[in-house]
Amino acid sequence: MSATDFPAWSREVAGRMETVLDGLLPSSRIAPARLHDAMRYATLGGGKRVRPMLVFAAGEVSQAEAPRLEIASAAVELIHAYSLVHDDMPCMDDDVLRRGKPTCHVEFDEATALLAGDAMQSLAFQLLAENRLADDPRVQLQMIQLFAVACGSRGMAGGQAIDLDAVGRSLTLPELENMHIHKTGALIRASVLLGARCGRPLDATAMASLDRYAKCVGLAFQVVDDILDEEADSATLGKTPGKDREAGKPTYTSLLGLPDAKKFASDLLADAHEALSAFDARADRLRQLADFIVKRDR
Amino acid sequence: MSATDFPAWSREVAGRMETVLDGLLPSSRIAPARLHDAMRYATLGGGKRVRPMLVFAAGEVSQAEAPRLEIASAAVELIHAYSLVHDDMPCMDDDVLRRGKPTCHVEFDEATALLAGDAMQSLAFQLLAENRLADDPRVQLQMIQLFAVACGSRGMAGGQAIDLDAVGRSLTLPELENMHIHKTGALIRASVLLGARCGRPLDATAMASLDRYAKCVGLAFQVVDDILDEEADSATLGKTPGKDREAGKPTYTSLLGLPDAKKFASDLLADAHEALSAFDARADRLRQLADFIVKRDR
Repeated sequence: MSATDFPAWSREVAGRMETVLDGLLPSSRIAPARLHDAMRYATLGGGKRVRPMLVFAAGEVSQAEAPRLEIASAAVELIHAYSLVHDDMPCMDDDVLRRGKPTCHVEFDEATALLAGDAMQSLAFQLLAENRLADDPRVQLQMIQLFAVACGSRGMAGGQAIDLDAVGRSLTLPELENMHIHKTGALIRASVLLGARCGRPLDATAMASLDRYAKCVGLAFQVVDDILDEEADSATLGKTPGKDREAGKPTYTSLLGLPDAKKFASDLLADAHEALSAFDARADRLRQLADFIVKRDR
Repeated sequence: MSATDFPAWSREVAGRMETVLDGLLPSSRIAPARLHDAMRYATLGGGKRVRPMLVFAAGEVSQAEAPRLEIASAAVELIHAYSLVHDDMPCMDDDVLRRGKPTCHVEFDEATALLAGDAMQSLAFQLLAENRLADDPRVQLQMIQLFAVACGSRGMAGGQAIDLDAVGRSLTLPELENMHIHKTGALIRASVLLGARCGRPLDATAMASLDRYAKCVGLAFQVVDDILDEEADSATLGKTPGKDREAGKPTYTSLLGLPDAKKFASDLLADAHEALSAFDARADRLRQLADFIVKRDR
């Protein structure tokens, strides 16, 4: 597929992910049916699938095979989706709308949403262990380890805890950055590193460059989220807009103002491109994806 | 240590687990401190450590090295402890007392308890991936896979979902058994199989025998739990007694009556011993442990 054809590629990845996740999630006909229904509801039929796109784009750099990238993408997307289910619960953000649909605990009930999230996390690790992702099984163990760290208290879950502590407080820019590096950045970074490790071994310099790219893109993603949250209305966004600001949560727009937040996003985009400067055309998808993440409108 | 010295052995395993978990859990001095505090609160300083005992006892059969068994035990215990944290939350069992202390969401808050449980699950998988557990890394991947299945929607989390559906309904004995095979049985089974796989390879017949032992012990554990819940008072049990009955949850004692429930537990104990009949003295700890699980008073 031509490198210029990014919209078609991104649609193809999103469509493929729907099929892959549909096949990997337990059927609603298997007991416990309501739990499996909730897991499917929370995972299928929506989402931008940005993390799978990052997995697939990074996999192009190392020429990874598609079946491996599908599994890695599914694991990442299951973790992302479970984090949204738990994050939307009344004891956390108490949100009722997600991807234009009622949130999982509204559609089902809180207990089912809690367990669905728990089981989605287990399923992600199951997928990474039961499918061949690397020629060397020791590399695969390292992949599971980096993924687990990205999910845990020093990754995504830790970022959500930092977020909880930040409500109603005024954060400095480094504090806000630290929150997002964990809350969304850790899983975005894991997406890029997992995708790359599904293929041929890359040297330490190349991996460090991909890591730097992922950090820039991860942070840019959040800055743009804040900008869209400030600017968009509910219909475009598919979730309740302006909610963070109303909840007294610090955002890039509340801290920097809209113009400087936009400038920051564009600086991060430039850094992301700079990080890829030593790569050839195999990194073009990553380049396009960085552009897409910063220039998206939802 | 002499095989007759079971009380000393079980105290040693429990004491060792406290030290091991203390060392593996992130320090409360590391950010996010409140999350790490909650993870430590929920994991340390209590519990019977039955699952670690099963890991260590099964490891004796395959002559597994202690450091491997410590890691496998820690992973199992983290999953068990996280499941209690989530299970105690208001949207689930809404319990305020656990191991004689306020439950995690009472001591901290619901959001922190939710995230602590999530991060404890991630940490369990991290431990299984980052430490050497088997000579062959492919075996280690299989161990992570079986562990993930035991945690997920067709294991422990699924059992909790079946439990939710059962409240206020009258279950048949096979339905009650199905619930417990998942809710507590899956992780008990994983404890035995993981412990055994940490050591020398056992043949398929031996593994099947251990699996049968684990199924009997897992079910017996729950039957005895129901008996203790019916008979004990709060001070002995360390948790709110009679709660399941009051909540309209089916139990072995409500279904069979106390005398037949006790008979059932003793039949399961006999089956557990029968499953080990082909093993030599290396299985003595498993034998003693089955006796302990059925004859315990808390």
